[in-house]
Amino acid sequence: MGETLLPAIGTEILIPACSLVAIAFALLQWLIVSRVKLSPGGLDSAGANSGSGKNGYAEYLIEEEDGLNDHSVVLKCADIQNAISEGATSFLFTEYRYVGIFMVAFAALIFLFLGSVEGFSTSNQPCTYDATKLCKPALATAIFSTVSFMLGAFTSVVSGFLGMKIATYANARTTLEARKGVGKAFIIAFRSGAVMGFLLAANGLLVLHITINLFKLYYGDDWGGLFESITGYGLGGSSMALFGRVGGGIYTKAADVGADLVGKVERNIPEDDPRNPAVIADNVGDNVGDIAGMGSDLFGSYAESTCAALVVASISSFGINHDFTAMLYPLIVSSVGILVCLITTLFATDFFEIKDVKEIEPALKRQLIISTILMTVGVAIVSWIALPSSFTIFNFGTQKVVKNWQVSLCVAVGLWAGLIIGFVTEYYTSNAYSPVQDVADSCRTGAATNVIFGLALGYKSVIVPIFAIAVSIYVSFSFAAMYGIAMAALGMLSTIATGLAIDAYGPISDNAGGIAEMAGMSHRIRERTDALDAAGNTTAAIGKGFAIGSAALVSLALFGAFVSRAGISTVNVLSPKVFIGLLVGAMLPYWFSAMTMKSVGSAALKMVEEVRRQFNTIPGLMEGTAKPDYATCVKISTDASIKEMIPPGALVMLTPLIVGILFGVETLSGVLAGSLVSGVQIAISASNTGGAWDNAKKYIEAGASEHAKTLGPKGSDPHKAAVIGDTIGDPLKDTSGPSLNILIKLMAVESLVFARFFATHGGLLFKI
Amino acid sequence: MGETLLPAIGTEILIPACSLVAIAFALLQWLIVSRVKLSPGGLDSAGANSGSGKNGYAEYLIEEEDGLNDHSVVLKCADIQNAISEGATSFLFTEYRYVGIFMVAFAALIFLFLGSVEGFSTSNQPCTYDATKLCKPALATAIFSTVSFMLGAFTSVVSGFLGMKIATYANARTTLEARKGVGKAFIIAFRSGAVMGFLLAANGLLVLHITINLFKLYYGDDWGGLFESITGYGLGGSSMALFGRVGGGIYTKAADVGADLVGKVERNIPEDDPRNPAVIADNVGDNVGDIAGMGSDLFGSYAESTCAALVVASISSFGINHDFTAMLYPLIVSSVGILVCLITTLFATDFFEIKDVKEIEPALKRQLIISTILMTVGVAIVSWIALPSSFTIFNFGTQKVVKNWQVSLCVAVGLWAGLIIGFVTEYYTSNAYSPVQDVADSCRTGAATNVIFGLALGYKSVIVPIFAIAVSIYVSFSFAAMYGIAMAALGMLSTIATGLAIDAYGPISDNAGGIAEMAGMSHRIRERTDALDAAGNTTAAIGKGFAIGSAALVSLALFGAFVSRAGISTVNVLSPKVFIGLLVGAMLPYWFSAMTMKSVGSAALKMVEEVRRQFNTIPGLMEGTAKPDYATCVKISTDASIKEMIPPGALVMLTPLIVGILFGVETLSGVLAGSLVSGVQIAISASNTGGAWDNAKKYIEAGASEHAKTLGPKGSDPHKAAVIGDTIGDPLKDTSGPSLNILIKLMAVESLVFARFFATHGGLLFKI
Repeated sequence: MGETLLPAIGTEILIPACSLVAIAFALLQWLIVSRVKLSPGGLDSAGANSGSGKNGYAEYLIEEEDGLNDHSVVLKCADIQNAISEGATSFLFTEYRYVGIFMVAFAALIFLFLGSVEGFSTSNQPCTYDATKLCKPALATAIFSTVSFMLGAFTSVVSGFLGMKIATYANARTTLEARKGVGKAFIIAFRSGAVMGFLLAANGLLVLHITINLFKLYYGDDWGGLFESITGYGLGGSSMALFGRVGGGIYTKAADVGADLVGKVERNIPEDDPRNPAVIADNVGDNVGDIAGMGSDLFGSYAESTCAALVVASISSFGINHDFTAMLYPLIVSSVGILVCLITTLFATDFFEIKDVKEIEPALKRQLIISTILMTVGVAIVSWIALPSSFTIFNFGTQKVVKNWQVSLCVAVGLWAGLIIGFVTEYYTSNAYSPVQDVADSCRTGAATNVIFGLALGYKSVIVPIFAIAVSIYVSFSFAAMYGIAMAALGMLSTIATGLAIDAYGPISDNAGGIAEMAGMSHRIRERTDALDAAGNTTAAIGKGFAIGSAALVSLALFGAFVSRAGISTVNVLSPKVFIGLLVGAMLPYWFSAMTMKSVGSAALKMVEEVRRQFNTIPGLMEGTAKPDYATCVKISTDASIKEMIPPGALVMLTPLIVGILFGVETLSGVLAGSLVSGVQIAISASNTGGAWDNAKKYIEAGASEHAKTLGPKGSDPHKAAVIGDTIGDPLKDTSGPSLNILIKLMAVESLVFARFFATHGGLLFKI
Repeated sequence: MGETLLPAIGTEILIPACSLVAIAFALLQWLIVSRVKLSPGGLDSAGANSGSGKNGYAEYLIEEEDGLNDHSVVLKCADIQNAISEGATSFLFTEYRYVGIFMVAFAALIFLFLGSVEGFSTSNQPCTYDATKLCKPALATAIFSTVSFMLGAFTSVVSGFLGMKIATYANARTTLEARKGVGKAFIIAFRSGAVMGFLLAANGLLVLHITINLFKLYYGDDWGGLFESITGYGLGGSSMALFGRVGGGIYTKAADVGADLVGKVERNIPEDDPRNPAVIADNVGDNVGDIAGMGSDLFGSYAESTCAALVVASISSFGINHDFTAMLYPLIVSSVGILVCLITTLFATDFFEIKDVKEIEPALKRQLIISTILMTVGVAIVSWIALPSSFTIFNFGTQKVVKNWQVSLCVAVGLWAGLIIGFVTEYYTSNAYSPVQDVADSCRTGAATNVIFGLALGYKSVIVPIFAIAVSIYVSFSFAAMYGIAMAALGMLSTIATGLAIDAYGPISDNAGGIAEMAGMSHRIRERTDALDAAGNTTAAIGKGFAIGSAALVSLALFGAFVSRAGISTVNVLSPKVFIGLLVGAMLPYWFSAMTMKSVGSAALKMVEEVRRQFNTIPGLMEGTAKPDYATCVKISTDASIKEMIPPGALVMLTPLIVGILFGVETLSGVLAGSLVSGVQIAISASNTGGAWDNAKKYIEAGASEHAKTLGPKGSDPHKAAVIGDTIGDPLKDTSGPSLNILIKLMAVESLVFARFFATHGGLLFKI
């Protein structure tokens, strides 16, 4: 079966080295961003850099032209940024406190359930896949799974929190840079996104690598047990991500919808107007939902796909032969991915310069293309040096012979499928193409046609991504069974640093626009940040596309691993136990969406009441002579999201437990498959519909073409119809849609972690 | 294995006898409806009946009180009715012409594909399930399948057309009766619905019975071949239903949305105002979409579930032993169902009298409860006399022993699951309960929250029906494998006559209201018809719930039959061929919905332009001094729906063929399962969301409670928001939603018909 070219010691050096390079790169980006000073003297010091390289500039600032370039604007920006940062930090701490309690309780559950598999026995047991050897007891798996669960949860928290900190650090700086031109602002926003992307990718990789090495000290040669315990890491990461996404999603959209309904619709004041009491809550929301939530989400996907690949690999020939390099191939792929993303980032920040609004979207698209092409080469090299030329993979009871180039193709197919999904998403959500323009056009006849066309667009946008995912599944499964699918998922996520950078850039620009408005800066600043934000909506949708696509592959891989571990070799749709699981599983995303959408709706109604109350009771608020009470609105969003995230969270976390315990592994398999195939569709359509509505509105507002001008300007009837669509899209694209991919992944990884327990003690109802 | 208590001759008499009783009963109802005269003298002759029994009345007519009771109103009603009837007839003829061409082409395809299975050989072949015997050649199956396909299509056309004729006959009569009170109007509308229900149920049963007897002349003892050919009947019925539902759905909603957008929103004139040029098209639409389309749809479900049960039964022990009564047990159940419905109808028309608006919904609900209870008894008796006490059922390669009481429970579980689905649907769509009231309340903050709450409501309404279906599947499969599931589906449909009656009653009342408005009758008439219509929205949603629930069971049964006939015994989700099918199948309902919704949107935009053009160019139209050009609007709807029904129709009809030929039966199994589990959810949520929005609007308009009054009156901001929701709901509840259940059934029955062909020649891509 052959040796790998890369020795184990090389692997032990390569992975941390890449992580550290990424962290250094992220810190460098942060340093560059921090050069934009938020203190009144900052402009001078930034100006002093003008001769020092690409980051200098010599143009006049708009504010100067407008005679507004006084220090008070900079001070105001700093103030607002502070308020946003404080609000976000305080929310995240509240959220983590509640979720922390849950995590501890769930950790106890993991320990108890997994420990009970062999009745908490401390003696070694015959291995599952090779009864001639002795493996560590289930109690050890219970302990180490619990530990890795906690570690995953903790890493997820750190990822989300860091992302939020960076974003709230960068938003006002982007505003200030926007005075110098759209290109400068773009680079600051993008660099800040890159800080988050690289820190997160490196973080996830490094913690996992260290954990594996530490666990190995105990497990020694029992790699089956070792990597079984490691799956707890994925579960921890994903459960935190669930609450982050749902809680953050409800927070941000309650504030956004509430602010819009009173501000834009009733009071006719612009978005982000400082007179609107919900405006700070809205901006805080972007950071806790779109940044922290999304960071945790993608970290979860990354952790899970790696765990899925590792657990399948641990029972392959190189797992059994203890070939450490081949075993850690998934981590090496990610390491190389980080390097590829590093080079790719330079194309956006240093090799090219954005001079015009129209260049933003192509620049972001170029990022995707470049990273994909480079990564394809990278994967080929990694597969050549880090895998034996031929080995066997465990495939539901049989062994399948796989060549290293086949695995390389699995990764590549996932990678390119991701690119296709990204492009299709762009086509359906960018206002440069006809789908969004058609939706904008339908606003002529009012909100109803806008909604009908928008929903139809979302449904239609599902077609190509599903075919892309289906082809990836077929190809990668044919080559390397479930290992191939896990690697395809990891391929899609291998350029995660770039994906996160272009994704995080959106909410940062959104915030930057908000700060410009609130600080009372020139209208031209707002136009620039709006252009950045419009591209950001598209990249956000692309990011969600990646997240969903990879979630589908990851869930399938986890599902496969679950089935293997639960000891079943077929999941027959014709068995009623499986079919009812499939049917009910396909229903779960609807149940979940109903909960989250209703939560956003109710929380928004509360927000509306508060905003109205303030407008009605605070004298001078509309005239701008009195300040609104931002804190109460922040509190409403916080309380609502903490309270409302519990039921959907419980639905996702408890379903696998209840089904597994009462109905057993067969029905649970059905539930997993059903929720997977149904959830993917709703998630894609919801996020694209929402993105399209948002950009249809922006298309009308920007009035960049003849066609767009006939629909505008702001305040026209078509524009009002577009605002309604945008508001409806908010919970779809930022709460329900993106949470659904966590739903499908989380149920799968949870089932995997508890597989042994279900197989031993589950199916009570059918046993009676 | 025992004999049945009912001899074969008894069966041969019972089925046609029940059918003829139903036809006689339907004609009697028609006669009663026809007593309401549409000629000016009619009122006197109706008045002359006052002493003759329950159908007489002695109250004053409202119009008399208002001094409006002149003959011109009656004449006007007759005129409008004529226009509607002509429009509907002409549309249906156009539709049938186009669909006819398709049917002939598809019939040729069936013949060619099925004939090619044994290379058009005319010699008998060893039987599939018993190689020691000789069975009729595949060529015979090809010929008879083609014939039964044509027969099914023809019966479906007749069902739809008759329904439309009755509805357009009854609408103006309901309007006239509404002058005498809401109770009288209710009875006329309900009786007309009953005419359709009984004619359709009897029609379907009788044609099938005769066809079986005729085919038996050729097939003799080869019951496998006989009932294999009979499945063409289901395919024919369902393919017509597809085009009827989609074409009719696009027609009705293009007109409805178009009329509302200009009339209600832009011109601020009431619904059904005669000045609106699209008003006749709108009323025609109710008849071709909600009546003809729905009639074809439920006929299709009925035909398919019977065929599924028959084809499974033909290889059971009584199929092999040629026990004719047991074999025709599904038809006997339907026959008894007709009798039960007949008794049930008397409760609505004769035993009780509606005196108040509030009694309408309970009366309709009582219909469901009574028919379900009576049918439960009926099924027990039928199972006792028409089935051997014990027999075996073919279950994917093995034989399963089944008792007659177990089959009886299968039917009953389907029946009661239908009732539960009906009640849940009522709860979520009737404005008597909190869900719709919450949606109405959310209109306070505008259209956006209305849409968010409405979508959430639809998603939530999926939960209980899915559990009900899941339990039915589990119970009926456990008792009698796929035969049990087919019988559960038939159980749900056994009270089809009542279901259709209360379903058809809705559009008739809707039309009646339209006629009242157009004829310029008193506002109080409109209020009465509106109350009938509000209950009609709920019953329509209930009817759709039944249609979807039964479609899910039917498709599963057909799927099981397909798998058996294609010769595969497991459909393993872990096989990539199956899984990609599952994923793509789950996507198809989205693709299909995108097409139909976009079609409605575009057709509505065309309609809007025409209506606007007429308002702008015809002088005196708004003042009511000039007549609009109704015919052009009718033509727009007709042309749009004929053109737009082709792509979604092709998607559904071609997918099984393409998948079967290129990817083979395994992938096709995945596609069927995927589209089933995903389509059911979208169908239920779409139809309930739409129903809820419609009734939320009606709730505000009616202003029957304190809460409702704070939201109204007509023209208030919350009401405008509610109108937007209603308009969005139109294509969801009347086009996409109900078409989806045909999608899932049709793909399944088509796969079943072509199963042998796919098994022989399919899977080309994987063979290469």
